[in-house]
Amino acid sequence: MRENKLRTLWSQNKPAINGWLAVPNGFSAEVMGHQGWDTLTIDMQHGLIDEGALLTMLQALQSTPAMPVVRAPWLDPAPLMKILDAGAQALICPMVNTREDAQRLVAYTHYAPRGGRSFGPVRAGLVHGADYATAANDNVVVFAMIETAQALDNLDAICSVEGLDAVYIGPSDLSLSLGCTPVFDDVDPPVAQAIDHILARAKAHDIKAGVHNGRTDVARARIAKGFDFVTISSDARILIAGSQQIVKEMKAS
Amino acid sequence: MRENKLRTLWSQNKPAINGWLAVPNGFSAEVMGHQGWDTLTIDMQHGLIDEGALLTMLQALQSTPAMPVVRAPWLDPAPLMKILDAGAQALICPMVNTREDAQRLVAYTHYAPRGGRSFGPVRAGLVHGADYATAANDNVVVFAMIETAQALDNLDAICSVEGLDAVYIGPSDLSLSLGCTPVFDDVDPPVAQAIDHILARAKAHDIKAGVHNGRTDVARARIAKGFDFVTISSDARILIAGSQQIVKEMKAS
Amino acid sequence: MRENKLRTLWSQNKPAINGWLAVPNGFSAEVMGHQGWDTLTIDMQHGLIDEGALLTMLQALQSTPAMPVVRAPWLDPAPLMKILDAGAQALICPMVNTREDAQRLVAYTHYAPRGGRSFGPVRAGLVHGADYATAANDNVVVFAMIETAQALDNLDAICSVEGLDAVYIGPSDLSLSLGCTPVFDDVDPPVAQAIDHILARAKAHDIKAGVHNGRTDVARARIAKGFDFVTISSDARILIAGSQQIVKEMKAS
Amino acid sequence: MRENKLRTLWSQNKPAINGWLAVPNGFSAEVMGHQGWDTLTIDMQHGLIDEGALLTMLQALQSTPAMPVVRAPWLDPAPLMKILDAGAQALICPMVNTREDAQRLVAYTHYAPRGGRSFGPVRAGLVHGADYATAANDNVVVFAMIETAQALDNLDAICSVEGLDAVYIGPSDLSLSLGCTPVFDDVDPPVAQAIDHILARAKAHDIKAGVHNGRTDVARARIAKGFDFVTISSDARILIAGSQQIVKEMKAS
Amino acid sequence: MRENKLRTLWSQNKPAINGWLAVPNGFSAEVMGHQGWDTLTIDMQHGLIDEGALLTMLQALQSTPAMPVVRAPWLDPAPLMKILDAGAQALICPMVNTREDAQRLVAYTHYAPRGGRSFGPVRAGLVHGADYATAANDNVVVFAMIETAQALDNLDAICSVEGLDAVYIGPSDLSLSLGCTPVFDDVDPPVAQAIDHILARAKAHDIKAGVHNGRTDVARARIAKGFDFVTISSDARILIAGSQQIVKEMKAS
Amino acid sequence: MRENKLRTLWSQNKPAINGWLAVPNGFSAEVMGHQGWDTLTIDMQHGLIDEGALLTMLQALQSTPAMPVVRAPWLDPAPLMKILDAGAQALICPMVNTREDAQRLVAYTHYAPRGGRSFGPVRAGLVHGADYATAANDNVVVFAMIETAQALDNLDAICSVEGLDAVYIGPSDLSLSLGCTPVFDDVDPPVAQAIDHILARAKAHDIKAGVHNGRTDVARARIAKGFDFVTISSDARILIAGSQQIVKEMKAS
Repeated sequence: MRENKLRTLWSQNKPAINGWLAVPNGFSAEVMGHQGWDTLTIDMQHGLIDEGALLTMLQALQSTPAMPVVRAPWLDPAPLMKILDAGAQALICPMVNTREDAQRLVAYTHYAPRGGRSFGPVRAGLVHGADYATAANDNVVVFAMIETAQALDNLDAICSVEGLDAVYIGPSDLSLSLGCTPVFDDVDPPVAQAIDHILARAKAHDIKAGVHNGRTDVARARIAKGFDFVTISSDARILIAGSQQIVKEMKAS
Repeated sequence: MRENKLRTLWSQNKPAINGWLAVPNGFSAEVMGHQGWDTLTIDMQHGLIDEGALLTMLQALQSTPAMPVVRAPWLDPAPLMKILDAGAQALICPMVNTREDAQRLVAYTHYAPRGGRSFGPVRAGLVHGADYATAANDNVVVFAMIETAQALDNLDAICSVEGLDAVYIGPSDLSLSLGCTPVFDDVDPPVAQAIDHILARAKAHDIKAGVHNGRTDVARARIAKGFDFVTISSDARILIAGSQQIVKEMKAS
Repeated sequence: MRENKLRTLWSQNKPAINGWLAVPNGFSAEVMGHQGWDTLTIDMQHGLIDEGALLTMLQALQSTPAMPVVRAPWLDPAPLMKILDAGAQALICPMVNTREDAQRLVAYTHYAPRGGRSFGPVRAGLVHGADYATAANDNVVVFAMIETAQALDNLDAICSVEGLDAVYIGPSDLSLSLGCTPVFDDVDPPVAQAIDHILARAKAHDIKAGVHNGRTDVARARIAKGFDFVTISSDARILIAGSQQIVKEMKAS
Repeated sequence: MRENKLRTLWSQNKPAINGWLAVPNGFSAEVMGHQGWDTLTIDMQHGLIDEGALLTMLQALQSTPAMPVVRAPWLDPAPLMKILDAGAQALICPMVNTREDAQRLVAYTHYAPRGGRSFGPVRAGLVHGADYATAANDNVVVFAMIETAQALDNLDAICSVEGLDAVYIGPSDLSLSLGCTPVFDDVDPPVAQAIDHILARAKAHDIKAGVHNGRTDVARARIAKGFDFVTISSDARILIAGSQQIVKEMKAS
Repeated sequence: MRENKLRTLWSQNKPAINGWLAVPNGFSAEVMGHQGWDTLTIDMQHGLIDEGALLTMLQALQSTPAMPVVRAPWLDPAPLMKILDAGAQALICPMVNTREDAQRLVAYTHYAPRGGRSFGPVRAGLVHGADYATAANDNVVVFAMIETAQALDNLDAICSVEGLDAVYIGPSDLSLSLGCTPVFDDVDPPVAQAIDHILARAKAHDIKAGVHNGRTDVARARIAKGFDFVTISSDARILIAGSQQIVKEMKAS
Repeated sequence: MRENKLRTLWSQNKPAINGWLAVPNGFSAEVMGHQGWDTLTIDMQHGLIDEGALLTMLQALQSTPAMPVVRAPWLDPAPLMKILDAGAQALICPMVNTREDAQRLVAYTHYAPRGGRSFGPVRAGLVHGADYATAANDNVVVFAMIETAQALDNLDAICSVEGLDAVYIGPSDLSLSLGCTPVFDDVDPPVAQAIDHILARAKAHDIKAGVHNGRTDVARARIAKGFDFVTISSDARILIAGSQQIVKEMKAS
């Protein structure tokens, strides 16, 4: 089976630099795929990306150095299994709040006996190799999003679920859930504390930790703290920042 | 009929700051449409945008402050008329090399008696108002691209065609045609000279002049020389530059 | 944040005249958007509209006077949140049958502390303004569909859920559930009685009431009774009726 | 090969009642296909319909009683041949202004020895039967649009081209070309005269004549005069008229 | 209402020869539809087919002799109801493991009083006839997939649910669940035994039984045992086998 | 710039085994791309593939061993240039009948000074490398289709055009043009003679020759005669043959 770039980087103790795709388009994905990102996450939760767009984006990224990760719309069996069948080797699942949630996540994303994923890797088998059926369980990487007060309460119960590879922190939702302002970078103190706590507990349970960032300085600082997977900005945010910079320079004249 | 933003800006002696869209997608277009660009050109010639994508992009831009311009795939009547019927109020036509080319361009884009545009403004009539049939001829702005040695030879014959509103310079193609390296900004001297010449002749014929740029400093310098319409970068180039900047900052750590 | 047209009309004690979209297409939506409807509901439950079509329809309606409303496919968190993130300011949720259903509906569609909507308004933030995060909870309008005998039994428990803005009656499903023929207008007496009862209880709980109609005379009569939101016909039904009228007139000759 | 409904109707001396499709969508086409129209014309010239939409619309109409006709974007070999390969059994070609235009139209749409249509009926062979290669030349119906003063001047030269089945009149373009207001129905006297003249010359050359109409009374009057194919209204116009009628009735209250 | 081909075949004691569609495309579906298959199953679970593709495939198959069957993505009310509203007359639901699952499946797919399917057959009513509301409950065929050890344990409880028409065996998932290698044809003995057992219990409960096969010899043997519905291969597998055969013959030279 | 697989094979005196794609879909293209074909031709002339489908198919094939070739819709500058900008490294142009046709073909597909291709390799530059501008002229392979009696008459004038890489024979069209039955394999004697003649003249002018075949035995015989590029069957034909074989085996029982 095709190498999972996240597992390779992590085996080398290197963090993954992850870009984010909100534009539902194969060409913008392909452009992003050639710019040096280790991985690119296709966002099916908050982005505007549906199953049809997912397929064209996975196909476009297949020939680039950036390995696709997919954020699923929700902790539901149908989309989780279709995402994997479509060829994703890594996925991020939103709103994992309890141990049972984490167990369902593992069950939906692994074949028996580890789970109950239904068999039919229509595209995954085509692009990842003939050993997909036997290799997928150990190759696919699954992140559980920790983004609510409830998830914080159940943190050890979640992190200790066998088969879970990593947690992923959404600072905005975590902020909202803790009564703070929803931002990625300059989070309020309770959120900063929670982020540190999640990182520490993930490490204690020997799983990886990822986090969403807006700016590179924040992402670098979080890597320095021990994060294994950092997202910076997104395609839409890059378009906004780049355009505003150009327009500002032009209108200044 | 809805105001043509280019005519308004030009009546105020202001140049238009134009962005460029190569990604065939309505959402990336909509994102760009809210960032301060005066106009955004949907590129059907070199971009990956076909008629279906054009429609969704025109619809997405309709609610933003940026007025869409469309670069047609070629000097052919079918696409030129469909682009206008779909609602574009400005278009750029590539490879106008002779007076006859310019006359055909005007004929395809204006109703009788000025031209022979076929009547059926299916979306244009819907979104621009009930007076479209009578107002379109004076509202629509048409640019002829000057990008070959042959066009340079015929420059006055082209610029003097009645009904042509503006010329648009593609420095890359012009460079290739003059035996120089295809770039937007730091053009070889013969190309620089040609650009100045085209600008001067356009002004002499009392039509507007536009030009494609990569960087803001170049665009600003060209405005200072008298250009009325300057393109800077593109959605794809902004994604590339923004991503590379982030990745560089992250990999430096 | 952009005004919610329903709240404006209701603050003026005016009912909203709502059209209905079953055709999964941005252009037919845009055509409908210019004909005087106050709102147009994009039907993701029984229509043939998926997420991709939803996006193009929302974009097309953005520049028309008609505010889009979306009927969600089901009371599930993933589609409800994606619909709002895509920019809908009003949604109708089918099959709200218990107080717990209504509470989940409110929770999925409002940010903490009122609910648990996940944060990431990718398009909503772009088109509705920078204050979306703080303004959305009070701006978005949520309808619960009352369309089963069970919902009738739980009517007060549903209507009294804080954060629910309105109920919406589907006379067809309500008829089926009460053992009657599924029609919109000339409903059987038990259904007529139930409709009156729902309207009365909604008013008693100080929330709004909407209802699906086939004909204008019925819709007008229901407005006279106090309904705040009336749907009449649909794009597909208008195509059918208009075509049949023309064909009948032609074949009569 | 599958029967051509136009040839059948005409062999019975019956006119065809033709609807018009401007919405680029398979479902709206399918809805229209079940309402009694003899034929439905998919407009690739002024509509917003490209090749991808054409295919889904042809497929949707295949199971309805209405036979699809396609108006080509222009007198170009590529689209004319693709339209036929996609399965259309009738097509209308805009802007046929000279005898040479008409000869090219016949050449592009018929196999040797009658013309030079390239062989490869990918979908047409699938859906119309194994004898497509030998039967297509006599089955397909080709209309030339007569819509300019130039075409009027060349009318007999056009109508006498062997292999041309019919002319189709676009009253709007004909009006513009004759210096009159572009309308379908209540045309100015010179246009009315031209329409009668075209009909008479078509009959004299033993070919069929079709015409675009807005209202049924006009279409009926034109049938009475001898027209063999009458278009009335369009999907978009039906949506507009139907919506405005409903809104008017509702706002009157 | 349009005849259900499965019910017709079964009333004649004939098995249905079923093809399988994994390619999300209307044209490949249409090609398959003309090759003699009794039915063709559009796979929304493991295939790459979403709602948008489903619609174009259903439309394409509508004019072919092959009746479409749809495998739903999961036992969820939203997709099950949309599939039926889109016009499917038969559906296969994955992962029916308990009597309650089977009851929910029947409830979601039948109108009251048999179930709680919501009323709004937007395309189904259009293409299947005006009596859809009253005829659908007896016309639609529903298969429950038996593919886990848990389902085997609950087999009689599942098969005896009133309104369930048939079971469908997925040998791959059944194999995985029983700790065997996931294959379609040459299954391990425990799986072979389970398949025989399921067939026997289905017959005992007077419902139909279907099964997925790779090769025709296996499918024929299973028909001989009593299966009523056999799938053989898929569009993607046919492309693979056919291509490999050609390439092998060519590379041998 | 990325290697052109055709040039590599030909430099090793090996013929290319070419598959053919008529289904407008990225996933079927990707499936075909993994089966051992040297190249796969995306047919934009007779297939149902438009620009939007082309892009997704090129992206899907990018990660497979099969290099895409594109058959253009016609000898027109707009599609030829867009196909190359989209990333195709080889193209087949239909209906090249005169020396001037061949010269136009070379001009449209090569940058100055060899031709007049407009510069803007939006996707080609992204996927083929930074040296695209200077390397493309020598990397891209261009085939002219010889498929009419007129082309036979002008054969040497065509084959001697500098910059033309190869001819491609369409036996069906050639047959029609010579008054014979349109088939690929068992052509009538005049066509067989013409095919041999074209091959001989191509070799005499030191350019390559390709031909369309239905069966492998014919393709192998033509390779033995000296052909450098042989197409066998197509995706649609494989689906038809494979399905009919299965159905025949099943119905035999």
